[in-house]
Amino acid sequence: MTYLTEETSAETVTARIGVNADPRLRRVMTSLVRHLHDFAKDVELTEAEWEYAIDFLTRTGQLCSDARQEFILLSDALGLSMLVDAINHRLPEGATETTVFGPFHVDDAPERPMGANISLDGKGELCLFSGRVLDLAGRPVANALVDVWSDNEDGFYDVQQPGIQPPFNNRGVFRTGPDGRYAFRGIRPVSYPIPDDGPVGQMLTALGRHPWRPAHMHFLITAPGYDRIITHIFVKGDPYLTSDAVFGVKQSLIVDFRPVTSTTEKWQAEFDFVMRPASDPAGVHRAANATTRKTQEEQA
Amino acid sequence: MTYLTEETSAETVTARIGVNADPRLRRVMTSLVRHLHDFAKDVELTEAEWEYAIDFLTRTGQLCSDARQEFILLSDALGLSMLVDAINHRLPEGATETTVFGPFHVDDAPERPMGANISLDGKGELCLFSGRVLDLAGRPVANALVDVWSDNEDGFYDVQQPGIQPPFNNRGVFRTGPDGRYAFRGIRPVSYPIPDDGPVGQMLTALGRHPWRPAHMHFLITAPGYDRIITHIFVKGDPYLTSDAVFGVKQSLIVDFRPVTSTTEKWQAEFDFVMRPASDPAGVHRAANATTRKTQEEQA
Repeated sequence: MTYLTEETSAETVTARIGVNADPRLRRVMTSLVRHLHDFAKDVELTEAEWEYAIDFLTRTGQLCSDARQEFILLSDALGLSMLVDAINHRLPEGATETTVFGPFHVDDAPERPMGANISLDGKGELCLFSGRVLDLAGRPVANALVDVWSDNEDGFYDVQQPGIQPPFNNRGVFRTGPDGRYAFRGIRPVSYPIPDDGPVGQMLTALGRHPWRPAHMHFLITAPGYDRIITHIFVKGDPYLTSDAVFGVKQSLIVDFRPVTSTTEKWQAEFDFVMRPASDPAGVHRAANATTRKTQEEQA
Repeated sequence: MTYLTEETSAETVTARIGVNADPRLRRVMTSLVRHLHDFAKDVELTEAEWEYAIDFLTRTGQLCSDARQEFILLSDALGLSMLVDAINHRLPEGATETTVFGPFHVDDAPERPMGANISLDGKGELCLFSGRVLDLAGRPVANALVDVWSDNEDGFYDVQQPGIQPPFNNRGVFRTGPDGRYAFRGIRPVSYPIPDDGPVGQMLTALGRHPWRPAHMHFLITAPGYDRIITHIFVKGDPYLTSDAVFGVKQSLIVDFRPVTSTTEKWQAEFDFVMRPASDPAGVHRAANATTRKTQEEQA
Protein backbone atom coordinates (compact mmCIF):
# COMPACT_ATOMS: atom_id res chain seq x y z
CA MET A 1 0.00 0.00 0.00
CA THR A 2 2.97 2.36 -0.50
CA TYR A 3 1.57 3.53 -3.83
CA LEU A 4 -2.11 4.07 -4.58
CA THR A 5 -3.82 1.47 -6.76
CA GLU A 6 -7.44 1.12 -7.82
CA GLU A 7 -7.90 -1.85 -5.50
CA THR A 8 -6.50 -0.38 -2.29
CA SER A 9 -7.01 3.33 -2.90
CA ALA A 10 -9.03 4.19 0.21
CA GLU A 11 -6.78 2.20 2.55
CA THR A 12 -3.68 3.86 1.11
CA VAL A 13 -5.15 7.28 1.87
CA THR A 14 -6.41 6.53 5.37
CA ALA A 15 -3.17 4.76 6.33
CA ARG A 16 -1.51 8.19 6.08
CA ILE A 17 -3.52 9.62 8.98
CA GLY A 18 -1.03 10.35 11.74
CA VAL A 19 -1.04 8.54 15.08
CA ASN A 20 -1.78 11.75 16.96
CA ALA A 21 -4.81 12.77 14.90
CA ASP A 22 -7.99 13.37 16.88
CA PRO A 23 -9.79 9.98 17.15
CA ARG A 24 -13.15 11.39 16.06
CA LEU A 25 -11.55 13.14 13.05
CA ARG A 26 -9.83 9.87 12.15
CA ARG A 27 -13.15 8.03 12.32
CA VAL A 28 -15.02 10.62 10.23
CA MET A 29 -12.30 10.97 7.57
CA THR A 30 -11.72 7.23 7.29
CA SER A 31 -15.41 6.71 6.60
CA LEU A 32 -15.58 9.72 4.26
CA VAL A 33 -12.65 8.52 2.14
CA ARG A 34 -14.00 4.98 2.00
CA HIS A 35 -17.47 6.09 0.86
CA LEU A 36 -16.06 8.66 -1.58
CA HIS A 37 -13.81 6.06 -3.20
CA ASP A 38 -16.57 3.43 -3.18
CA PHE A 39 -18.81 5.92 -5.02
CA ALA A 40 -16.17 6.64 -7.69
CA LYS A 41 -15.59 2.92 -8.20
CA ASP A 42 -19.29 2.07 -8.20
CA VAL A 43 -20.09 4.43 -11.07
CA GLU A 44 -16.63 4.27 -12.69
CA LEU A 45 -16.52 8.03 -12.57
CA THR A 46 -15.15 9.43 -15.84
CA GLU A 47 -12.57 12.20 -16.02
CA ALA A 48 -15.15 14.49 -17.64
CA GLU A 49 -17.57 13.83 -14.77
CA TRP A 50 -14.83 14.51 -12.23
CA GLU A 51 -14.02 17.80 -13.98
CA TYR A 52 -17.71 18.71 -13.97
CA ALA A 53 -17.89 17.97 -10.24
CA ILE A 54 -14.84 20.16 -9.51
CA ASP A 55 -16.42 23.01 -11.48
CA PHE A 56 -19.84 22.45 -9.85
CA LEU A 57 -18.40 22.58 -6.33
CA THR A 58 -16.29 25.63 -7.20
CA ARG A 59 -19.31 27.51 -8.55
CA THR A 60 -21.33 26.47 -5.50
CA GLY A 61 -18.69 27.92 -3.18
CA GLN A 62 -18.27 31.09 -5.17
CA LEU A 63 -22.00 31.85 -5.08
CA CYS A 64 -21.97 31.86 -1.28
CA SER A 65 -22.20 35.27 0.37
CA ASP A 66 -23.67 36.86 3.49
CA ALA A 67 -27.06 36.68 1.75
CA ARG A 68 -26.85 33.20 0.25
CA GLN A 69 -25.50 29.78 1.30
CA GLU A 70 -25.50 27.54 -1.79
CA PHE A 71 -23.76 24.63 0.00
CA ILE A 72 -26.54 24.46 2.62
CA LEU A 73 -29.00 24.51 -0.27
CA LEU A 74 -27.09 21.63 -1.89
CA SER A 75 -27.14 19.66 1.37
CA ASP A 76 -30.88 20.39 1.68
CA ALA A 77 -31.64 19.33 -1.91
CA LEU A 78 -29.71 16.07 -1.47
CA GLY A 79 -31.66 15.23 1.69
CA LEU A 80 -28.47 15.37 3.76
CA SER A 81 -29.67 18.20 6.03
CA MET A 82 -32.83 16.30 6.98
CA LEU A 83 -30.82 13.10 7.52
CA VAL A 84 -28.40 14.89 9.88
CA ASP A 85 -31.42 16.37 11.65
CA ALA A 86 -32.94 12.90 12.02
CA ILE A 87 -29.70 11.35 13.31
CA ASN A 88 -29.24 14.10 15.90
CA HIS A 89 -32.87 14.30 17.06
CA ARG A 90 -34.07 10.81 17.82
CA LEU A 91 -36.91 12.05 19.97
CA PRO A 92 -38.79 10.53 22.86
CA GLU A 93 -42.46 9.79 22.23
CA GLY A 94 -44.52 12.97 22.22
CA ALA A 95 -41.72 15.49 21.60
CA THR A 96 -42.27 17.84 18.65
CA GLU A 97 -40.56 16.65 15.48
CA THR A 98 -37.80 18.78 13.98
CA THR A 99 -37.01 19.86 10.44
CA VAL A 100 -34.45 21.90 8.47
CA PHE A 101 -33.23 25.19 9.92
CA GLY A 102 -32.85 26.76 6.48
CA PRO A 103 -30.58 29.68 5.59
CA PHE A 104 -32.98 32.55 6.36
CA HIS A 105 -32.92 32.81 10.16
CA VAL A 106 -31.42 35.96 11.67
CA ASP A 107 -30.03 36.13 15.20
CA ASP A 108 -31.20 39.60 16.10
CA ALA A 109 -34.93 39.58 15.41
CA PRO A 110 -36.76 41.79 17.96
CA GLU A 111 -38.74 40.44 20.89
CA ARG A 112 -42.35 41.56 20.40
CA PRO A 113 -45.35 41.69 22.76
CA MET A 114 -47.53 38.61 22.75
CA GLY A 115 -50.11 38.80 19.96
CA ALA A 116 -48.14 41.32 17.86
CA ASN A 117 -48.32 41.33 14.10
CA ILE A 118 -45.00 40.43 12.46
CA SER A 119 -46.18 41.20 8.92
CA LEU A 120 -44.86 44.72 8.44
CA ASP A 121 -45.36 45.11 4.69
CA GLY A 122 -49.15 44.78 4.79
CA LYS A 123 -49.12 42.03 2.17
CA GLY A 124 -50.80 38.65 2.45
CA GLU A 125 -53.70 37.22 4.39
CA LEU A 126 -53.31 37.62 8.16
CA CYS A 127 -53.41 34.58 10.41
CA LEU A 128 -53.47 34.19 14.19
CA PHE A 129 -50.85 31.65 15.26
CA SER A 130 -51.31 30.34 18.78
CA GLY A 131 -50.72 27.42 21.06
CA ARG A 132 -48.67 26.29 24.04
CA VAL A 133 -45.09 25.29 24.78
CA LEU A 134 -45.20 22.16 26.95
CA ASP A 135 -42.83 19.62 28.46
CA LEU A 136 -43.11 15.87 27.92
CA ALA A 137 -45.53 15.60 30.86
CA GLY A 138 -47.84 18.25 29.35
CA ARG A 139 -46.84 21.00 31.82
CA PRO A 140 -46.47 24.58 30.49
CA VAL A 141 -42.91 25.80 29.83
CA ALA A 142 -42.54 29.39 31.00
CA ASN A 143 -39.90 31.77 29.66
CA ALA A 144 -39.61 29.88 26.41
CA LEU A 145 -38.45 32.07 23.51
CA VAL A 146 -40.55 31.42 20.42
CA ASP A 147 -38.56 32.79 17.47
CA VAL A 148 -40.63 32.76 14.26
CA TRP A 149 -40.01 33.73 10.64
CA SER A 150 -41.65 33.26 7.26
CA ASP A 151 -41.61 34.53 3.71
CA ASN A 152 -43.89 37.37 2.64
CA GLU A 153 -46.78 37.03 0.21
CA ASP A 154 -44.37 37.23 -2.75
CA GLY A 155 -42.46 34.20 -1.46
CA PHE A 156 -39.35 36.05 -0.26
CA TYR A 157 -37.77 36.42 3.18
CA ASP A 158 -36.81 39.97 4.18
CA VAL A 159 -33.08 39.15 3.97
CA GLN A 160 -33.57 38.22 0.32
CA GLN A 161 -35.00 41.68 -0.42
CA PRO A 162 -33.03 44.22 1.60
CA GLY A 163 -34.34 47.71 0.86
CA ILE A 164 -37.58 46.30 -0.52
CA GLN A 165 -39.10 44.69 2.57
CA PRO A 166 -39.06 46.50 5.95
CA PRO A 167 -36.34 45.24 8.33
CA PHE A 168 -37.45 42.17 10.33
CA ASN A 169 -40.55 41.79 8.16
CA ASN A 170 -42.30 38.53 9.12
CA ARG A 171 -39.95 37.92 12.06
CA GLY A 172 -40.32 38.16 15.80
CA VAL A 173 -39.47 36.59 19.15
CA PHE A 174 -42.20 35.92 21.76
CA ARG A 175 -41.67 34.97 25.38
CA THR A 176 -44.10 32.59 27.06
CA GLY A 177 -45.55 33.31 30.49
CA PRO A 178 -46.44 30.84 33.26
CA ASP A 179 -49.22 29.33 31.10
CA GLY A 180 -46.74 28.46 28.33
CA ARG A 181 -48.98 30.16 25.76
CA TYR A 182 -47.77 31.99 22.69
CA ALA A 183 -49.74 34.00 20.12
CA PHE A 184 -48.80 36.24 17.23
CA ARG A 185 -50.18 37.42 13.94
CA GLY A 186 -48.39 36.82 10.65
CA ILE A 187 -49.37 35.97 7.12
CA ARG A 188 -50.66 32.60 6.09
CA PRO A 189 -47.34 31.59 4.48
CA VAL A 190 -47.09 30.83 0.76
CA SER A 191 -45.15 28.18 -1.14
CA TYR A 192 -41.95 29.45 -2.78
CA PRO A 193 -39.09 28.09 -4.88
CA ILE A 194 -35.66 27.78 -3.26
CA PRO A 195 -33.13 30.00 -5.08
CA ASP A 196 -32.78 28.13 -8.38
CA ASP A 197 -30.57 30.38 -10.49
CA GLY A 198 -27.33 28.69 -9.34
CA PRO A 199 -25.69 25.25 -9.44
CA VAL A 200 -28.33 23.67 -7.16
CA GLY A 201 -31.12 24.91 -9.45
CA GLN A 202 -29.25 23.46 -12.44
CA MET A 203 -28.95 20.15 -10.62
CA LEU A 204 -32.67 20.06 -9.82
CA THR A 205 -33.54 20.83 -13.46
CA ALA A 206 -31.22 18.08 -14.73
CA LEU A 207 -32.82 15.65 -12.26
CA GLY A 208 -36.34 16.58 -13.36
CA ARG A 209 -37.13 18.02 -9.90
CA HIS A 210 -38.95 21.28 -9.12
CA PRO A 211 -37.50 23.82 -6.63
CA TRP A 212 -40.68 24.47 -4.60
CA ARG A 213 -41.16 24.28 -0.87
CA PRO A 214 -44.64 23.93 0.61
CA ALA A 215 -45.83 26.96 2.62
CA HIS A 216 -44.54 26.97 6.21
CA MET A 217 -43.87 29.12 9.28
CA HIS A 218 -40.45 28.61 10.90
CA PHE A 219 -40.10 28.12 14.67
CA LEU A 220 -36.96 28.10 16.81
CA ILE A 221 -37.97 27.46 20.42
CA THR A 222 -35.52 27.65 23.30
CA ALA A 223 -36.01 27.40 27.04
CA PRO A 224 -33.58 26.85 29.93
CA GLY A 225 -33.26 23.14 30.70
CA TYR A 226 -34.74 21.94 27.40
CA ASP A 227 -33.37 20.94 24.00
CA ARG A 228 -34.09 23.64 21.46
CA ILE A 229 -36.71 22.84 18.82
CA ILE A 230 -36.00 23.83 15.21
CA THR A 231 -39.05 23.13 13.10
CA HIS A 232 -41.80 24.45 10.82
CA ILE A 233 -45.54 24.14 10.74
CA PHE A 234 -46.82 23.43 7.24
CA VAL A 235 -50.11 24.54 5.68
CA LYS A 236 -52.42 21.58 5.14
CA GLY A 237 -53.52 21.26 1.51
CA ASP A 238 -50.37 22.81 0.02
CA PRO A 239 -49.67 21.16 -3.36
CA TYR A 240 -45.96 20.70 -2.56
CA LEU A 241 -46.33 18.83 0.76
CA THR A 242 -45.39 15.51 -0.83
CA SER A 243 -42.57 16.90 -2.99
CA ASP A 244 -40.78 19.49 -0.81
CA ALA A 245 -37.52 20.34 -2.61
CA VAL A 246 -35.62 19.94 0.67
CA PHE A 247 -37.54 16.94 2.11
CA GLY A 248 -38.53 18.91 5.22
CA VAL A 249 -42.14 17.78 5.68
CA LYS A 250 -43.31 15.49 8.47
CA GLN A 251 -46.90 14.40 8.92
CA SER A 252 -47.04 15.66 12.50
CA LEU A 253 -46.11 19.20 11.42
CA ILE A 254 -48.97 19.70 8.95
CA VAL A 255 -51.55 22.08 10.44
CA ASP A 256 -55.09 22.86 9.36
CA PHE A 257 -55.26 26.61 8.80
CA ARG A 258 -58.92 27.43 9.53
CA PRO A 259 -60.80 30.46 8.22
CA VAL A 260 -62.09 32.79 10.97
CA THR A 261 -64.43 35.75 11.06
CA SER A 262 -62.48 38.55 12.64
CA THR A 263 -61.72 42.14 11.90
CA THR A 264 -57.98 41.51 12.28
CA GLU A 265 -57.29 38.18 10.57
CA LYS A 266 -58.69 35.74 8.04
CA TRP A 267 -57.09 32.53 9.35
CA GLN A 268 -56.02 30.81 12.49
CA ALA A 269 -53.47 28.05 13.09
CA GLU A 270 -53.03 26.32 16.43
CA PHE A 271 -50.08 24.17 17.37
CA ASP A 272 -48.60 22.99 20.68
CA PHE A 273 -44.87 22.40 20.94
CA VAL A 274 -43.49 19.72 23.25
CA MET A 275 -39.91 20.16 24.46
CA ARG A 276 -37.59 17.44 25.72
CA PRO A 277 -35.11 17.90 28.58
CA ALA A 278 -31.66 19.18 27.60
CA SER A 279 -29.52 16.33 26.31
CA ASP A 280 -26.65 17.92 24.39
CA PRO A 281 -24.26 19.91 26.60
CA ALA A 282 -22.13 22.04 24.28
CA GLY A 283 -18.92 20.44 23.19
CA VAL A 284 -19.77 16.97 24.37
CA HIS A 285 -19.88 14.37 21.68
CA ARG A 286 -22.99 12.34 20.86
CA ALA A 287 -21.48 9.06 22.00
CA ALA A 288 -20.65 10.67 25.33
CA ASN A 289 -24.14 12.15 25.45
CA ALA A 290 -25.75 8.77 25.24
CA THR A 291 -24.12 8.01 28.57
CA THR A 292 -24.98 11.45 29.98
CA ARG A 293 -28.60 11.09 29.01
CA LYS A 294 -28.85 7.67 30.56
CA THR A 295 -27.34 8.96 33.77
CA GLN A 296 -29.78 11.87 33.84
CA GLU A 297 -32.68 9.50 33.26
CA GLU A 298 -31.45 7.17 35.98
CA GLN A 299 -31.12 10.11 38.33
CA ALA A 300 -34.58 11.41 37.47
CA MET B 1 -41.37 7.07 1.44
CA THR B 2 -43.43 10.28 1.04
CA TYR B 3 -41.54 11.90 3.92
CA LEU B 4 -37.83 11.45 4.64
CA THR B 5 -36.90 9.25 7.60
CA GLU B 6 -33.52 8.14 8.89
CA GLU B 7 -34.14 4.60 7.64
CA THR B 8 -35.17 5.37 4.04
CA SER B 9 -33.50 8.74 3.52
CA ALA B 10 -31.47 7.92 0.40
CA GLU B 11 -34.35 6.12 -1.31
CA THR B 12 -36.70 9.03 -0.60
CA VAL B 13 -34.27 11.41 -2.32
CA THR B 14 -33.49 9.26 -5.35
CA ALA B 15 -37.16 8.37 -5.87
CA ARG B 16 -37.66 12.04 -6.77
CA ILE B 17 -35.46 11.83 -9.86
CA GLY B 18 -37.72 12.41 -12.86
CA VAL B 19 -38.45 9.75 -15.45
CA ASN B 20 -36.84 11.81 -18.19
CA ALA B 21 -33.53 12.42 -16.39
CA ASP B 22 -30.44 11.35 -18.30
CA PRO B 23 -29.81 7.67 -17.43
CA ARG B 24 -26.12 8.22 -16.65
CA LEU B 25 -26.93 11.20 -14.41
CA ARG B 26 -29.55 9.09 -12.64
CA ARG B 27 -26.98 6.35 -12.07
CA VAL B 28 -24.29 8.73 -10.78
CA MET B 29 -26.61 10.72 -8.51
CA THR B 30 -28.33 7.63 -7.11
CA SER B 31 -24.95 6.22 -6.10
CA LEU B 32 -23.73 9.59 -4.81
CA VAL B 33 -26.78 10.09 -2.58
CA ARG B 34 -26.60 6.53 -1.29
CA HIS B 35 -22.91 6.80 -0.37
CA LEU B 36 -23.31 10.30 1.09
CA HIS B 37 -26.18 9.17 3.33
CA ASP B 38 -24.37 5.94 4.25
CA PHE B 39 -21.39 8.03 5.35
CA ALA B 40 -23.52 10.34 7.53
CA LYS B 41 -25.23 7.34 9.13
CA ASP B 42 -21.99 5.41 9.57
CA VAL B 43 -20.34 8.16 11.62
CA GLU B 44 -23.59 9.60 13.03
CA LEU B 45 -22.51 13.00 11.74
CA THR B 46 -23.22 15.68 14.33
CA GLU B 47 -24.78 19.03 13.51
CA ALA B 48 -21.54 20.78 14.50
CA GLU B 49 -19.60 18.55 12.10
CA TRP B 50 -22.13 19.22 9.33
CA GLU B 51 -21.77 22.97 9.94
CA TYR B 52 -17.99 22.64 9.83
CA ALA B 53 -18.23 20.76 6.53
CA ILE B 54 -20.48 23.45 5.00
CA ASP B 55 -18.01 26.13 6.06
CA PHE B 56 -15.01 24.06 4.87
CA LEU B 57 -16.52 23.53 1.41
CA THR B 58 -17.52 27.20 1.19
CA ARG B 59 -14.01 28.37 2.04
CA THR B 60 -12.57 25.85 -0.43
CA GLY B 61 -14.75 27.26 -3.22
CA GLN B 62 -14.06 30.86 -2.34
CA LEU B 63 -10.29 30.35 -2.45
CA CYS B 64 -10.49 29.19 -6.08
CA SER B 65 -9.28 31.66 -8.69
CA ASP B 66 -7.56 31.66 -12.06
CA ALA B 67 -4.32 31.00 -10.19
CA ARG B 68 -5.53 28.39 -7.70
CA GLN B 69 -7.92 25.43 -7.70
CA GLU B 70 -8.46 24.37 -4.07
CA PHE B 71 -11.11 21.74 -4.97
CA ILE B 72 -8.66 19.92 -7.25
CA LEU B 73 -6.17 20.09 -4.39
CA LEU B 74 -8.79 18.58 -2.07
CA SER B 75 -9.52 15.79 -4.55
CA ASP B 76 -5.77 15.19 -4.87
CA ALA B 77 -5.19 15.11 -1.11
CA LEU B 78 -8.07 12.63 -0.61
CA GLY B 79 -6.64 10.30 -3.26
CA LEU B 80 -9.72 10.78 -5.45
CA SER B 81 -7.81 12.26 -8.38
CA MET B 82 -5.47 9.26 -8.54
CA LEU B 83 -8.39 6.84 -8.18
CA VAL B 84 -10.24 8.47 -11.08
CA ASP B 85 -7.00 8.31 -13.07
CA ALA B 86 -6.67 4.60 -12.28
CA ILE B 87 -10.29 3.82 -13.18
CA ASN B 88 -10.00 5.64 -16.51
CA HIS B 89 -6.57 4.35 -17.49
CA ARG B 90 -6.55 0.60 -17.11
CA LEU B 91 -3.56 0.16 -19.38
CA PRO B 92 -2.39 -2.70 -21.56
CA GLU B 93 0.90 -4.32 -20.54
CA GLY B 94 3.85 -2.10 -21.39
CA ALA B 95 2.01 1.22 -21.73
CA THR B 96 3.40 4.08 -19.63
CA GLU B 97 1.56 4.52 -16.34
CA THR B 98 -0.30 7.77 -15.71
CA THR B 99 -0.55 10.07 -12.73
CA VAL B 100 -2.25 13.31 -11.62
CA PHE B 101 -2.46 16.19 -14.09
CA GLY B 102 -2.17 18.78 -11.34
CA PRO B 103 -3.37 22.38 -11.49
CA PHE B 104 -0.25 23.97 -12.99
CA HIS B 105 -0.39 23.03 -16.68
CA VAL B 106 -0.91 25.86 -19.17
CA ASP B 107 -2.37 25.35 -22.64
CA ASP B 108 -0.23 27.83 -24.54
CA ALA B 109 3.35 26.88 -23.67
CA PRO B 110 5.64 27.52 -26.66
CA GLU B 111 6.98 24.77 -28.94
CA ARG B 112 10.76 24.82 -28.62
CA PRO B 113 13.53 23.30 -30.74
CA MET B 114 14.66 19.84 -29.67
CA GLY B 115 17.31 20.08 -26.95
CA ALA B 116 16.31 23.59 -25.84
CA ASN B 117 16.69 24.71 -22.25
CA ILE B 118 13.30 25.44 -20.60
CA SER B 119 14.84 26.87 -17.41
CA LEU B 120 14.70 30.60 -18.11
CA ASP B 121 15.48 31.95 -14.64
CA GLY B 122 18.95 30.44 -14.46
CA LYS B 123 18.22 28.79 -11.11
CA GLY B 124 18.74 25.14 -10.23
CA GLU B 125 20.96 22.35 -11.50
CA LEU B 126 20.53 21.67 -15.21
CA CYS B 127 19.59 18.20 -16.38
CA LEU B 128 19.34 16.66 -19.84
CA PHE B 129 16.01 14.87 -20.21
CA SER B 130 15.88 12.45 -23.14
CA GLY B 131 14.28 9.29 -24.42
CA ARG B 132 11.85 8.02 -27.02
CA VAL B 133 8.12 8.00 -27.61
CA LEU B 134 7.14 4.49 -28.71
CA ASP B 135 4.03 2.46 -29.50
CA LEU B 136 3.14 -0.82 -27.79
CA ALA B 137 5.21 -2.72 -30.36
CA GLY B 138 8.30 -0.60 -29.62
CA ARG B 139 8.09 1.42 -32.86
CA PRO B 140 8.92 5.15 -32.74
CA VAL B 141 5.98 7.55 -32.69
CA ALA B 142 6.69 10.54 -34.93
CA ASN B 143 4.99 13.92 -34.52
CA ALA B 144 4.25 13.31 -30.86
CA LEU B 145 3.99 16.54 -28.87
CA VAL B 146 5.92 16.26 -25.61
CA ASP B 147 4.60 19.02 -23.33
CA VAL B 148 6.71 19.34 -20.17
CA TRP B 149 6.58 21.53 -17.06
CA SER B 150 8.16 21.64 -13.61
CA ASP B 151 8.68 23.90 -10.62
CA ASN B 152 11.79 26.09 -10.37
CA GLU B 153 14.54 25.63 -7.83
CA ASP B 154 12.46 27.48 -5.19
CA GLY B 155 9.64 24.95 -5.57
CA PHE B 156 7.19 27.21 -7.46
CA TYR B 157 5.65 26.96 -10.91
CA ASP B 158 5.81 30.13 -13.02
CA VAL B 159 2.02 30.61 -12.76
CA GLN B 160 2.38 30.77 -8.98
CA GLN B 161 4.83 33.66 -9.28
CA PRO B 162 3.65 35.95 -12.09
CA GLY B 163 6.00 38.91 -12.41
CA ILE B 164 8.71 37.05 -10.48
CA GLN B 165 9.47 34.17 -12.83
CA PRO B 166 9.87 34.76 -16.59
CA PRO B 167 6.78 33.72 -18.61
CA PHE B 168 6.81 30.02 -19.50
CA ASN B 169 9.72 29.37 -17.17
CA ASN B 170 10.33 25.61 -16.99
CA ARG B 171 7.77 24.88 -19.70
CA GLY B 172 8.00 23.81 -23.31
CA VAL B 173 6.57 21.62 -26.04
CA PHE B 174 8.81 19.39 -28.17
CA ARG B 175 7.82 17.57 -31.35
CA THR B 176 9.33 14.14 -32.10
CA GLY B 177 10.77 13.31 -35.49
CA PRO B 178 10.69 9.93 -37.31
CA ASP B 179 12.97 8.38 -34.65
CA GLY B 180 10.47 9.22 -31.86
CA ARG B 181 13.26 10.85 -29.85
CA TYR B 182 12.84 13.82 -27.54
CA ALA B 183 15.45 15.81 -25.63
CA PHE B 184 15.39 19.01 -23.62
CA ARG B 185 17.22 20.69 -20.79
CA GLY B 186 15.50 21.71 -17.58
CA ILE B 187 16.35 21.72 -13.90
CA ARG B 188 16.57 18.62 -11.80
CA PRO B 189 13.18 19.24 -10.15
CA VAL B 190 12.91 19.78 -6.40
CA SER B 191 10.30 18.61 -3.88
CA TYR B 192 7.76 21.24 -2.87
CA PRO B 193 4.74 21.56 -0.60
CA ILE B 194 1.31 21.86 -2.21
CA PRO B 195 -0.30 25.22 -1.30
CA ASP B 196 -1.05 24.67 2.37
CA ASP B 197 -2.33 28.03 3.57
CA GLY B 198 -5.98 27.16 2.83
CA PRO B 199 -8.60 24.62 3.92
CA VAL B 200 -6.71 21.66 2.38
CA GLY B 201 -3.58 22.61 4.31
CA GLN B 202 -5.64 22.83 7.50
CA MET B 203 -7.06 19.38 6.79
CA LEU B 204 -3.59 17.90 6.23
CA THR B 205 -2.35 19.43 9.50
CA ALA B 206 -5.33 18.08 11.43
CA LEU B 207 -4.71 14.63 9.93
CA GLY B 208 -1.02 14.71 10.85
CA ARG B 209 0.00 14.68 7.18
CA HIS B 210 2.69 16.81 5.52
CA PRO B 211 1.98 18.76 2.31
CA TRP B 212 5.10 17.72 0.35
CA ARG B 213 5.30 16.27 -3.13
CA PRO B 214 8.43 14.41 -4.24
CA ALA B 215 10.39 16.13 -7.03
CA HIS B 216 8.99 15.43 -10.51
CA MET B 217 8.90 16.62 -14.12
CA HIS B 218 5.41 16.71 -15.69
CA PHE B 219 4.74 15.22 -19.13
CA LEU B 220 1.65 15.50 -21.34
CA ILE B 221 2.24 13.51 -24.51
CA THR B 222 -0.16 13.54 -27.43
CA ALA B 223 0.05 12.01 -30.90
CA PRO B 224 -2.57 11.38 -33.60
CA GLY B 225 -4.07 7.90 -33.21
CA TYR B 226 -2.88 7.41 -29.62
CA ASP B 227 -4.32 7.99 -26.16
CA ARG B 228 -2.67 10.95 -24.53
CA ILE B 229 -0.32 10.24 -21.63
CA ILE B 230 -0.50 12.46 -18.55
CA THR B 231 2.28 11.54 -16.17
CA HIS B 232 5.40 12.60 -14.26
CA ILE B 233 8.86 11.18 -13.88
CA PHE B 234 10.02 11.23 -10.27
CA VAL B 235 13.57 11.67 -8.97
CA LYS B 236 14.86 8.47 -7.41
CA GLY B 237 15.98 8.98 -3.81
CA ASP B 238 13.55 11.80 -3.04
CA PRO B 239 12.52 11.58 0.65
CA TYR B 240 8.82 12.06 -0.17
CA LEU B 241 8.44 9.24 -2.73
CA THR B 242 6.59 7.06 -0.24
CA SER B 243 4.45 9.84 1.23
CA ASP B 244 3.47 12.05 -1.73
CA ALA B 245 0.73 14.39 -0.43
CA VAL B 246 -1.37 13.61 -3.53
CA PHE B 247 -0.54 9.87 -3.86
CA GLY B 248 0.85 10.37 -7.40
CA VAL B 249 3.89 8.09 -7.29
CA LYS B 250 4.14 4.79 -9.18
CA GLN B 251 7.20 2.58 -9.07
CA SER B 252 7.56 2.54 -12.87
CA LEU B 253 7.82 6.35 -12.99
CA ILE B 254 10.81 6.66 -10.64
CA VAL B 255 13.92 7.54 -12.64
CA ASP B 256 17.58 7.47 -11.69
CA PHE B 257 18.92 10.99 -12.30
CA ARG B 258 22.61 10.34 -13.05
CA PRO B 259 25.40 12.90 -12.65
CA VAL B 260 27.23 13.75 -15.88
CA THR B 261 30.35 15.67 -16.76
CA SER B 262 29.31 18.30 -19.24
CA THR B 263 29.75 22.00 -19.72
CA THR B 264 25.98 22.45 -20.06
CA GLU B 265 24.38 20.20 -17.44
CA LYS B 266 25.09 18.33 -14.22
CA TRP B 267 22.50 15.55 -14.55
CA GLN B 268 20.78 13.36 -17.07
CA ALA B 269 17.48 11.50 -16.90
CA GLU B 270 16.37 9.03 -19.56
CA PHE B 271 12.85 7.74 -19.95
CA ASP B 272 10.93 6.10 -22.82
CA PHE B 273 7.17 6.68 -23.07
CA VAL B 274 4.93 3.96 -24.51
CA MET B 275 1.60 5.10 -25.98
CA ARG B 276 -1.50 2.98 -26.47
CA PRO B 277 -3.83 3.27 -29.48
CA ALA B 278 -6.65 5.82 -29.15
CA SER B 279 -9.52 4.37 -27.20
CA ASP B 280 -11.61 7.29 -26.04
CA PRO B 281 -13.35 9.11 -28.90
CA ALA B 282 -14.59 12.40 -27.48
CA GLY B 283 -18.09 12.33 -26.11
CA VAL B 284 -18.45 8.57 -26.09
CA HIS B 285 -18.95 7.04 -22.70
CA ARG B 286 -16.58 4.48 -21.17
CA ALA B 287 -19.10 1.66 -21.33
CA ALA B 288 -19.53 2.32 -25.03
CA ASN B 289 -15.75 2.54 -25.40
CA ALA B 290 -15.26 -0.93 -24.07
CA THR B 291 -17.18 -2.15 -27.12
CA THR B 292 -15.32 0.20 -29.43
CA ARG B 293 -11.97 -0.99 -28.16
CA LYS B 294 -12.93 -4.60 -28.58
CA THR B 295 -14.06 -3.93 -32.13
CA GLN B 296 -10.81 -2.14 -32.91
CA GLU B 297 -8.82 -5.02 -31.48
CA GLU B 298 -10.86 -7.57 -33.41
CA GLN B 299 -10.33 -5.56 -36.56
CA ALA B 300 -6.60 -5.20 -35.92
